[in-house]
Amino acid sequence: MTKVIAEMSMSLDGFIADENDGIDELFGWYGNGEVAVPTAVEHMTFQVSPASAEHLRPAFAGAIGALICGRRVFDLTNGWGGKHPIGCPVFVVSHSVPADQHGAAFFTDPLEALSAARKEAGDRDIAVATPTITQQFLDAGELDAIVVSLVPVLLGRGIRFFDNLATTPVRLSDPTVTEGRGVTHLTYNII
Amino acid sequence: MTKVIAEMSMSLDGFIADENDGIDELFGWYGNGEVAVPTAVEHMTFQVSPASAEHLRPAFAGAIGALICGRRVFDLTNGWGGKHPIGCPVFVVSHSVPADQHGAAFFTDPLEALSAARKEAGDRDIAVATPTITQQFLDAGELDAIVVSLVPVLLGRGIRFFDNLATTPVRLSDPTVTEGRGVTHLTYNII
Repeated sequence: MTKVIAEMSMSLDGFIADENDGIDELFGWYGNGEVAVPTAVEHMTFQVSPASAEHLRPAFAGAIGALICGRRVFDLTNGWGGKHPIGCPVFVVSHSVPADQHGAAFFTDPLEALSAARKEAGDRDIAVATPTITQQFLDAGELDAIVVSLVPVLLGRGIRFFDNLATTPVRLSDPTVTEGRGVTHLTYNII
Repeated sequence: MTKVIAEMSMSLDGFIADENDGIDELFGWYGNGEVAVPTAVEHMTFQVSPASAEHLRPAFAGAIGALICGRRVFDLTNGWGGKHPIGCPVFVVSHSVPADQHGAAFFTDPLEALSAARKEAGDRDIAVATPTITQQFLDAGELDAIVVSLVPVLLGRGIRFFDNLATTPVRLSDPTVTEGRGVTHLTYNII
């Protein structure tokens, strides 16, 4: 049964990037450990703590059938060079289509993107990799789970994971907790 | 050795109260369990999960020698009726002194309040119970630890635990994690 899962690395004060889209303070845990987690991209292998490796492995072993993101992260990563590290098809929510789509599919309506992603994913899960789309899916009741990889830092300012929520409170389950190094992975179901 | 510790219940999106100072969504874990934790106030006993009881007990068994708060929470609680549940002396940071001080000490300068609290606490720890003072102590390098009792809810708006930080990033240790019911207690040291 497909679950729609939003997952991001977040500072303790709620930011998933700094004011300049910087993520250096938040992504250190991807490279601070002794366990190699290969990705779908040949030259990209994460080196994480054993606990984080257990947390990451399913996503990099085929559990995710589609990834939905916004145009901002797509442009920032240059469309992941045509291949997302997870190795699944990418669905981008954007008002316009770029000259080079890097193999991704583009939609103006986030719910149409979700519908197409569901068809692609089959029984596998769908990852949501952008805060604004997470917020829209939350408001539309389309999100099943939230994974916060909580990083022990206060950034003070930047881009928030959760912002502009129209329908609150959103109540969650108690989390499954995985204690990594430089990160605490918290997996919540939306109830 | 005294530690200055800021501790609050916080939603996953960073709020310690809603827009109207409401805390109903955040304080449920104080009453959802089978273990009684008595407080210094005769009629006030918490009923929490076994894990939360372990987390709470030291504070209610004399580990905290002084508590620092702002005028807002002091007024909202009516000065805790003259006795804080922790049972320790209360130091209030405020621009003015109310007619009824409820036995608390008042200071205009947060660092003077801290100095007085240190004298009172001796070797015991000092609790900081207000976000703005937490922020000021963080900026002044006077905070040793942050305890976030993370509640599985998104509030969308309200009063944030961490806001207006002048000096960032603030790097923290990996947390000690205690998994309660309706709350995850995360204890970070500031490094």
